[in-house]
Amino acid sequence: MAQPKSKNITWHHANVTTAERQDATGQRGCVVWFTGLSGSGKSTVSRRVEQLLLERGRTSYSLDGDNIRHGLNKDLGFSPEDRTENIRRIGEVAKLFADATVITTTAFISPYREDRDSVRSIMPPGTFVEVFVDAPLEVCEERDPKGLYKKARAGIIPEFTGISAPYEEPESPEIVLKTADHDVDACANQVIAFLAARGFVNGR
Amino acid sequence: MAQPKSKNITWHHANVTTAERQDATGQRGCVVWFTGLSGSGKSTVSRRVEQLLLERGRTSYSLDGDNIRHGLNKDLGFSPEDRTENIRRIGEVAKLFADATVITTTAFISPYREDRDSVRSIMPPGTFVEVFVDAPLEVCEERDPKGLYKKARAGIIPEFTGISAPYEEPESPEIVLKTADHDVDACANQVIAFLAARGFVNGR
Repeated sequence: MAQPKSKNITWHHANVTTAERQDATGQRGCVVWFTGLSGSGKSTVSRRVEQLLLERGRTSYSLDGDNIRHGLNKDLGFSPEDRTENIRRIGEVAKLFADATVITTTAFISPYREDRDSVRSIMPPGTFVEVFVDAPLEVCEERDPKGLYKKARAGIIPEFTGISAPYEEPESPEIVLKTADHDVDACANQVIAFLAARGFVNGR
Repeated sequence: MAQPKSKNITWHHANVTTAERQDATGQRGCVVWFTGLSGSGKSTVSRRVEQLLLERGRTSYSLDGDNIRHGLNKDLGFSPEDRTENIRRIGEVAKLFADATVITTTAFISPYREDRDSVRSIMPPGTFVEVFVDAPLEVCEERDPKGLYKKARAGIIPEFTGISAPYEEPESPEIVLKTADHDVDACANQVIAFLAARGFVNGR
């Protein structure tokens, strides 16, 4: 066996810094956090933003119910405690993605202001972009893409945000999207314009 | 207010596929899963692999105790149940990173074969690369970079892998690294060579 003692000196733990990673990939990561009622269009716009960024040569990724609820957070339900833990974990994962220089979009109802602010607080300044997807409840309920409002009104789903559980609107979101008045592309481009103005879209 | 009904048709949920993402970023993601005793060199080699990949223009990211234990998994301890949940969550996060086309390295003791196989089972075929960081216990104990073996021997730390808790060696890992015989760069380059042979390193 080789001399482990003399070799210890080479086993120094040198982490790549976020700045070095940004330099290597030519982009800065951030978290674009979509919040709003079920049916407001969060996931649709966030996926479209991801697509537009990829078309511009940026590395982008969307976290939403499709890839989180049946994976990382499959052990969580919809009680207030579980909703908070759901958002905490998503925030931690989004933070890692942003640290990896990925422009990360997240689409979760995230009804509690405190939970969203907690995610903001763990992110480096200027890298958390809160997007309030502001559609009236009656519009969301008429869209009802998954038939959830109908079930909530029938009492089949308890603690449904907007019906039987609270939604706390953001007080000073970076972006407000009026999805009842504008179509998906207009909303997605509003987000892209904001990100471009903050220097996230144009790299080398 | 605009006509929500007529607008519903544009709110189709179109997810970007993994293949489309790979096409846009010019790389394929995978998970390079380092497993081995404390002090075997998992984290050091995995960070070096990340660095070498970044130098080659690849987007890479390391998950290890430094960025997971105080964040996503700060609610977990070291009981068998918590160790399993720790690895489950890390596996799910690594899967998301790989789906985002990031070459993802993970460095966790991950002592249970079943837990590692569970992660392998959720990954697309050929995208889980198990790296057994194979250093003799006595070498790891002599290195003892964090003084943990000393504490484990003194009974201060219970359930310490290799001393008072089991480590189940991989049965057919893709890569075996002999970190007592080779230095960090040699081990990291062994991993890079494997990834290159599998087509993960050279993109556009």
